[in-house]
Amino acid sequence: MNAPTDPTDALWSSRTAAPRPSLRFVTAAAGAVALCLGGGCAAPDDELPPGLDTLFASTAPHGASPAEQALLDAVNTERLSDWHDMVAAVPHRAGTPGDAHLVDALVAAFTAMGLEVERHEFHALLAEPVSASVSIVAPEDIELSLIEEVLSEDSYSAHEDLEMGWNAYSASGDVTAEVVYVNHGRKEDFERLQTLGVSCEGRIVLARYGGNFRGYKAKFAEAAGAAGLIIFTDPKDSGWGRGLSYPEGGFAHPSHIQRGSILTVPWTGDPLTPYAEATADAERLAVDAIALPKIPVQPVSWSAAQQILSRMTGASVPGDWQGGLPFRYRLTGGDALQVRLAVEQRREIMPTWNVLATLRGTAEPEREVIIGSHHDAWNCGAVDPTCGLICVLEAAQAFVDSGLSPRRSITFAAWGAEEFGIIGSSEWVEANEQRLRENAVAYFNLDAAVTGPHFGASASPSLQRLIAEVTGAVAAVPADDADPAVGAGSPDDADAAVGAESADADTEGASAERRSVLADWRSRSQHAGVDDLPALGDLGGGSDFVTFLARAGVPSASLSAGGSAGTAYHGNHDTLAWYRQVVGDDYEPARMVTQITALLAARLADAPLLPLDPSMVGIETKRHLTDLSARGRSNGLFATGEQTVAPELKRLRNKAHKVQQRGQQIRSALARSQEAGELDDKALAQINTLLLSLDRTWLDEQGLQNRPWYTNLFAAPDEDSGYAPWMLPALRWVVEHEEASALPAVEKRYLAVFARIHKLLDKLEKISG
Amino acid sequence: MNAPTDPTDALWSSRTAAPRPSLRFVTAAAGAVALCLGGGCAAPDDELPPGLDTLFASTAPHGASPAEQALLDAVNTERLSDWHDMVAAVPHRAGTPGDAHLVDALVAAFTAMGLEVERHEFHALLAEPVSASVSIVAPEDIELSLIEEVLSEDSYSAHEDLEMGWNAYSASGDVTAEVVYVNHGRKEDFERLQTLGVSCEGRIVLARYGGNFRGYKAKFAEAAGAAGLIIFTDPKDSGWGRGLSYPEGGFAHPSHIQRGSILTVPWTGDPLTPYAEATADAERLAVDAIALPKIPVQPVSWSAAQQILSRMTGASVPGDWQGGLPFRYRLTGGDALQVRLAVEQRREIMPTWNVLATLRGTAEPEREVIIGSHHDAWNCGAVDPTCGLICVLEAAQAFVDSGLSPRRSITFAAWGAEEFGIIGSSEWVEANEQRLRENAVAYFNLDAAVTGPHFGASASPSLQRLIAEVTGAVAAVPADDADPAVGAGSPDDADAAVGAESADADTEGASAERRSVLADWRSRSQHAGVDDLPALGDLGGGSDFVTFLARAGVPSASLSAGGSAGTAYHGNHDTLAWYRQVVGDDYEPARMVTQITALLAARLADAPLLPLDPSMVGIETKRHLTDLSARGRSNGLFATGEQTVAPELKRLRNKAHKVQQRGQQIRSALARSQEAGELDDKALAQINTLLLSLDRTWLDEQGLQNRPWYTNLFAAPDEDSGYAPWMLPALRWVVEHEEASALPAVEKRYLAVFARIHKLLDKLEKISG
Repeated sequence: MNAPTDPTDALWSSRTAAPRPSLRFVTAAAGAVALCLGGGCAAPDDELPPGLDTLFASTAPHGASPAEQALLDAVNTERLSDWHDMVAAVPHRAGTPGDAHLVDALVAAFTAMGLEVERHEFHALLAEPVSASVSIVAPEDIELSLIEEVLSEDSYSAHEDLEMGWNAYSASGDVTAEVVYVNHGRKEDFERLQTLGVSCEGRIVLARYGGNFRGYKAKFAEAAGAAGLIIFTDPKDSGWGRGLSYPEGGFAHPSHIQRGSILTVPWTGDPLTPYAEATADAERLAVDAIALPKIPVQPVSWSAAQQILSRMTGASVPGDWQGGLPFRYRLTGGDALQVRLAVEQRREIMPTWNVLATLRGTAEPEREVIIGSHHDAWNCGAVDPTCGLICVLEAAQAFVDSGLSPRRSITFAAWGAEEFGIIGSSEWVEANEQRLRENAVAYFNLDAAVTGPHFGASASPSLQRLIAEVTGAVAAVPADDADPAVGAGSPDDADAAVGAESADADTEGASAERRSVLADWRSRSQHAGVDDLPALGDLGGGSDFVTFLARAGVPSASLSAGGSAGTAYHGNHDTLAWYRQVVGDDYEPARMVTQITALLAARLADAPLLPLDPSMVGIETKRHLTDLSARGRSNGLFATGEQTVAPELKRLRNKAHKVQQRGQQIRSALARSQEAGELDDKALAQINTLLLSLDRTWLDEQGLQNRPWYTNLFAAPDEDSGYAPWMLPALRWVVEHEEASALPAVEKRYLAVFARIHKLLDKLEKISG
Repeated sequence: MNAPTDPTDALWSSRTAAPRPSLRFVTAAAGAVALCLGGGCAAPDDELPPGLDTLFASTAPHGASPAEQALLDAVNTERLSDWHDMVAAVPHRAGTPGDAHLVDALVAAFTAMGLEVERHEFHALLAEPVSASVSIVAPEDIELSLIEEVLSEDSYSAHEDLEMGWNAYSASGDVTAEVVYVNHGRKEDFERLQTLGVSCEGRIVLARYGGNFRGYKAKFAEAAGAAGLIIFTDPKDSGWGRGLSYPEGGFAHPSHIQRGSILTVPWTGDPLTPYAEATADAERLAVDAIALPKIPVQPVSWSAAQQILSRMTGASVPGDWQGGLPFRYRLTGGDALQVRLAVEQRREIMPTWNVLATLRGTAEPEREVIIGSHHDAWNCGAVDPTCGLICVLEAAQAFVDSGLSPRRSITFAAWGAEEFGIIGSSEWVEANEQRLRENAVAYFNLDAAVTGPHFGASASPSLQRLIAEVTGAVAAVPADDADPAVGAGSPDDADAAVGAESADADTEGASAERRSVLADWRSRSQHAGVDDLPALGDLGGGSDFVTFLARAGVPSASLSAGGSAGTAYHGNHDTLAWYRQVVGDDYEPARMVTQITALLAARLADAPLLPLDPSMVGIETKRHLTDLSARGRSNGLFATGEQTVAPELKRLRNKAHKVQQRGQQIRSALARSQEAGELDDKALAQINTLLLSLDRTWLDEQGLQNRPWYTNLFAAPDEDSGYAPWMLPALRWVVEHEEASALPAVEKRYLAVFARIHKLLDKLEKISG
């Protein structure tokens, strides 16, 4: 009713009126500049632009080269805000006209930039809500609301295409039963209920969000014999337990409902076409051959949940099961309290689209850096995903506007149907798997990437140093934009200023000098294995990097900036009004993330020597072996002992240590050769091919235990929550399942990985001298 | 109205009707048995009753001697319940007729046992509530309730003598102002407010209970310029955040109000007579010469607080300031919200009483073991204090009934006016200070000592091993009585059964065999310094041991058993109905605590060689130095380093280590001499005098910084919360105040303590050979 008019029109007209940079792709004019990117240019030795050579020499933060600075300067906050209007003003769930229109707009935008654009159609099994109701039927009749309140402060919340809350792939069904509260509905929660003698059989179970992927709540509820599942947002986790509610503050409104898929098939992507692209005529699994939910599942707000929870009469919950509602939570509702849950959904194979826009490389066009965010959202998706999508758009625009023309290709991607099961990116990777395994340099994911001023990343080992290095050349969001409680103090060391050349300036309280992202990041965290790096997360499950990483072995990273006080996750209040009130309307954080992303792409696409680092994989593998030792000791699989790595993993640890030592030597040798100008084109080509293969050494076509689709022995999503990373996942499986007998065979597979790595390092050593 | 009739009548009549053990003190008949107590009896060597010798030989749990077993068997659960009826049926705040009647009943009960009874009168400055009101006066008028609801399930809650909520020693005053929320009202909370730019000047501040002694909330509020203070119980800390509310469960009812004193003078006891007994004609400080609160202070329930808190409109609180009420807490109320706080109290010097009952020792009557609990309560006090007081009564009765007549005296004490400022015990210690410093063997405190099945203790180092040893001879509360969530599993090692001689029996699932208290205790905790001991707490502030310990240097312990799900702390629902519903009506936990207390008294009073342990003080001092090092490092007073003890404390650490080594050698030597029968009466007398002096070596008449009344350099209540222990308190002061310049002088004082200890150990070494 009060919804804004089509923002795409507004965007185009405003952009047409404003003076605009050329959208044409200026190959020739940009060439000379581009040649200077990344350390291989013709500048004199004492002015070597930093970048690649810095990675191989040290990780001290440093400035951008002039060409890189032009790229950074091209990133524009007003345009970021305009893109946001274009992509987040109306609801656009995959499978709806809203999303189809957005795809059109994206194709138009990338085309206008002069990029090579592909609209990649795929046909996946999606779901659609038909109807749902949750009601108390005894001792009194109360119908509970299943949609968020329309807020007068937020005109977007009134859009007529906004839908009720639902969990995609729920079974259809209509059940009436007693209720049981199952805390987060994790494996251990259902086990605890069993210990406490509480049966879920035939009952409707109530689970609060958090603690695991919602699909596992459904899976475990079904396994426990539940008749249905109601998932609610708890105010302790998302509301007053965290801060003021929207619209006064940024946290969940009492009517907030978290939508989301509950798919848990043992692969990522279209549930019917694992291993293959979901083309219109692809060979498909039968729908009833896959483990889709068999019980009705429905998300509700805490306002609705409170009606049920406050009427429960059973025993008090264990201490850590208590949520934030103003009464003690109970395990059971008692038989006087009857709840009806009715859900109707349609599951249907339907077309939807990825949009890919490529800036073709000048020298090695087949080599490809990919930057992506999905475009589909449960509603308007101002946060999830579009605050990341606008960085993809703006990074592309910045490359075009600054006229850069790198050696290798950069592909900007907007993925479809991520919310249903990371489908679009997976189908594209499956469609291009061989090519990507051979040529993909790296994948950067930007899903919902900008919700505050503080940058962070999860990344494959080979990308960690580069990411840190790049953040040293980008200015942090000004302190007055940042949460005063976090990292807003005056810079107090040389790292604090952007660019090594300005490190001597008086930075104390200087307003002209802006702190680097790296300085802010390092002030908040410290890498466990390397002194001069900030902490980077382990990459696991949950977004479009999964198939790149865990199936194709492409080094990947998830980039984001957070720190604002709020969440409207998967709710109808995830709007531009929410975003601009809570995160801000100056788009400084989005500029920062875009600049980091663009600079990463520039260095990976243009450096003559690929800045993929062979020195971190050994360090990180050792860290993961230490972690697995501790887990195996705490569950009794391994004997306790004083050494950080259990004797059972000692052989692997020694191999990892050797990889670390050799990786560091090779990194130094490469840096020396690079600086001395000893690497000719042939050597560079050979080295690059080897560096590009490094992450693929972890691929093992046998796949993981019970999940053969996942072929990367270094990283995978976890088995029971879907969100958390499992590092060295075949080994992790042995530890989690306490399957000592499986250890020798798994160890052998990892020894084979190390053999492949050492073989690769042998070759690198030989070439790098 | 519905209150029970005088339970004292009921008790006496029921006891007269039932067959009763002799209440007469049978000196002669009991003598032979008594001589066998504690290891020095005439039994053949191979049947040496365990006790003292076990302490000096090892800490393995073991059984009681036949005489000790008779004492344990005399402890009677029905009588414990009867005592409880006698002491907790009616309100008995210090200064009220209810408490005077209770004193009469206690005198009568101890007299009936045949003990030497003293009614010790003292005249302290107490306070009395006159009237109070808390109301919202704008934007609307709401008068808030200041008394708990009468519950139909609990007839005791209707007693006409129950009073409104109040904080003793509040100033009288009537103020109307805006409000500020100050979290727990700790020093750091007010500092945080200053950082956040929130002024308390002229405002009424709202603090939630917890985090410190309530007196410091008032002190800091006053220092911050507040016009008044309202303290509320938060449901997160005492209500639904913990469990089901009374009367369904045991946690705080929404109308629960925590009463309590807010006295914070820098000594313990009557605020007007530090150092001296508060006799009727004692020399007194002027009331306005001491730092009594100058602003009105009033406690309220969360039902009342919610009315104010929910109307506040200021900024969101920092994360950890959020309580359990169903909205985000705010820092400020805004000027539209006006609250009126009116308090009228009388401060008056009035008589009240300690009751002391002595079982006179046969051989060393001047040597005295003291067991005490206060008798005054804010209301009926079924928990606080009388569930401990009944153990004192029953321990006395058990000694009498079992006919024991130990070498040294045992004094059973019921202290007055503890709630106002630990007054009665302090006045008695001050009245008898020289005698106690020379002759007191140990003090055991039993304030509110039985609220569940799981035993624990805080204790001076010289008592720690004895307490652990004694708990090895007492049966734990049967598992079906205990919380199923805590330590209720089958015993799985030899310690599990009561008595070393039954350790070989098959205890797995055996119902006949009861687990020892020690086994239960050790399954829940582990001493940081000694492998075979459970963890014992550090003794600090908060009850009647303070003056014994921190001024007279008497080794002390606080004994208690907890683990039930509930609290009615200082509220009108602290009734027998609450106790019997929540803790239980079988009095098994009270029997256990009484048995432990009686056995401790028996061994300390009867063992020819005093079982005070010289080996723990060095171990514990080292632990405290490690803790102080960490604190001093974290606040920058000490340089960081790898050694657990900072170099600045190294000299003290070395001295403590030497004390530990020598203490252990002497303990072994004493055990050997004892076993070999080499210690004649003269040697024993000399050794006992030295062992008795051990804890007094820490006394230093200069006292603590700014608190000269506290003379024990080993332990004191902390400076800013009043509840927590400060160990090595003169040193702790240096660390907390970061006063590096004060360190040399303080170190010198501690070196003098070590010199005194070493001199004492020299003498012990010489005698023990």
